[in-house]
Amino acid sequence: MISPPPPPTDGPLTLEELQLAARNKGMPLEALRYDVTPVGMHYLLVHFDIPALEAATWRLRVGGNVARGLELSLDDLRSLPRVTMPVTLECAGNGRARLHPRPISQPWLVEAVGTAEWTGTPLAGVLAAAGIAPGTVEMLFVGADHGIEKGHEHDYARSLTLDEAMRPDVLLAYEMNGRPLEPQHGFPLRLLVPGWYGMTHVKWLTRIDALNEPFDGYQQKTAYWYKRSPDDPGQPVTRIKPRALLIPPGFPDFLTRTRTLDADRTELRGRAWSGGAPIARVEVGIDGVWTEAKLGAALGTYAWCSWSLDWDATPGEHVLSCRAFDEAGSSQPLEQPWNVQGMGNNLVQSVRVIVR
Amino acid sequence: MISPPPPPTDGPLTLEELQLAARNKGMPLEALRYDVTPVGMHYLLVHFDIPALEAATWRLRVGGNVARGLELSLDDLRSLPRVTMPVTLECAGNGRARLHPRPISQPWLVEAVGTAEWTGTPLAGVLAAAGIAPGTVEMLFVGADHGIEKGHEHDYARSLTLDEAMRPDVLLAYEMNGRPLEPQHGFPLRLLVPGWYGMTHVKWLTRIDALNEPFDGYQQKTAYWYKRSPDDPGQPVTRIKPRALLIPPGFPDFLTRTRTLDADRTELRGRAWSGGAPIARVEVGIDGVWTEAKLGAALGTYAWCSWSLDWDATPGEHVLSCRAFDEAGSSQPLEQPWNVQGMGNNLVQSVRVIVR
Repeated sequence: MISPPPPPTDGPLTLEELQLAARNKGMPLEALRYDVTPVGMHYLLVHFDIPALEAATWRLRVGGNVARGLELSLDDLRSLPRVTMPVTLECAGNGRARLHPRPISQPWLVEAVGTAEWTGTPLAGVLAAAGIAPGTVEMLFVGADHGIEKGHEHDYARSLTLDEAMRPDVLLAYEMNGRPLEPQHGFPLRLLVPGWYGMTHVKWLTRIDALNEPFDGYQQKTAYWYKRSPDDPGQPVTRIKPRALLIPPGFPDFLTRTRTLDADRTELRGRAWSGGAPIARVEVGIDGVWTEAKLGAALGTYAWCSWSLDWDATPGEHVLSCRAFDEAGSSQPLEQPWNVQGMGNNLVQSVRVIVR
Repeated sequence: MISPPPPPTDGPLTLEELQLAARNKGMPLEALRYDVTPVGMHYLLVHFDIPALEAATWRLRVGGNVARGLELSLDDLRSLPRVTMPVTLECAGNGRARLHPRPISQPWLVEAVGTAEWTGTPLAGVLAAAGIAPGTVEMLFVGADHGIEKGHEHDYARSLTLDEAMRPDVLLAYEMNGRPLEPQHGFPLRLLVPGWYGMTHVKWLTRIDALNEPFDGYQQKTAYWYKRSPDDPGQPVTRIKPRALLIPPGFPDFLTRTRTLDADRTELRGRAWSGGAPIARVEVGIDGVWTEAKLGAALGTYAWCSWSLDWDATPGEHVLSCRAFDEAGSSQPLEQPWNVQGMGNNLVQSVRVIVR
């Protein structure tokens, strides 16, 4: 019943990719105008089905290598210290459909991103209450979403090292933009690990276990790896690489999305973010000539910052790009190194504009 | 600069279709479990860009063939009589990607639907305040969204006959599910014409004009027509045809979305709706054998109703379908008549399930 996964292709989009694109949701790029993305415009990737969980009966179980197993209701969690912070989330597969050849999975172009105000309680406090026992090396986070991926039937689950899990800004989040999570974003509770790609922020959390051994589940040891070939041992996908995106100026053609703009002084605007370090600068490419943009303050330690650049748009066809650089010295490639799963493709965005 | 539109094809999905699928949003079918669709799961089709409108400066202008032109703020509209009603909206292009050959546009499979609780004020009251003058045949509704479609640059606009516009359940809607509209759903104001396909519910309303002549704009006279061939004068797309959808049972495979289910008595559930008349019955097809389902009450005159059927799921592969019939005698085709624009394809849904 298990057929081998389809190989990467330069061929046409498949029905499987269309089915995934119809379910999962990108952020329309004009939504880069908002500091905080409206809930219904935030990107969303769901591996299996969105579970039907009821707050009244749902519980979070904390167990494994702990002194005291816990069983917490949503009210229990809401009575703990409350933290709100803006965090930019991005799918690790963002940009996959622009790779050649193209790995067959959710076919993101560049739109798998969003920034929300997340509210929850620090995970560290809950772990302290449970009493993490000596010998613990990782914390495991298990969601209620269940399915099959490449032949592996499982509940979606990911782990973090104990050090990473104890970071004070890692949250058990129950609100998004000041309201209870909508079902598709993990109601009633999800993990939030600021700085990391989306696969880490386990939705529909039901169980947290302290482990004596590293977790070897499918989503940890097979999916979400940078591999140059199927035999490459590779590197795990962790923090979000730098990326800048610009709000396509002017107005679109419905089918081609080609932009038309009147010749005039135009403010190019966008956002930039990196999970590894603060954004140091953004450069804007106009027909291949790069200029440093004016950088706004970041919305938070792990949230995007705005940038802008005035442009005298002259009649003709132009190509606009933008490129983020972070304080750790990382930036975006102009040619993307390929990897088997299509992870972390932060190739610079290019937008074609016809100025009239 | 205007290239002819690409012809319908049985060929592979195009980059243009992928770009549209990445922007527009389907409702994941498991969301059929909710009477009222969470805002972030409701389907969404936006022709151009989502406009950036501010409530403080936005105004609705009512003019044309009226006794008194009006200029209304959002507060003005909120002070008028307030009505809330559940309404099911569906994109007229839903099902397009299942046609052979496939018209090139937004490539919906079956998921372009949702039901919300819409709140607003009856349009008829605002029209009465403006005083519709004799000779008026249509009302024109103009949105703030601007772009080019098949060479026509325009603000998105649609008209209704005066009779249709005066229906008491046609609303100027400013809330969705009890909150102000999110930007992508038409903030601050959209038209709501219960029973009609989505193109009619003009978002980001800025102007309403009483017309002495029928409106001949692109979205009215060119787009949204049932045509058997490019030369066919055709019929306009109006009300939503009957459709039933089922919640795919069991759990999915990530890539193929094939469902796996344990052998057991299983309640098949879903929703059915029609813009033309109340739903009379729903039939469920199990491996081609049709059985009448148990029908729940409709959520409202123009909102979907639930249905269910118990099924003894036996090991093996099965194909599940459902089919809605309305009280006007309309139902869903088992083979879809083709049309040029891929409109109103309400071919019955089929879900393949592996029972183990």
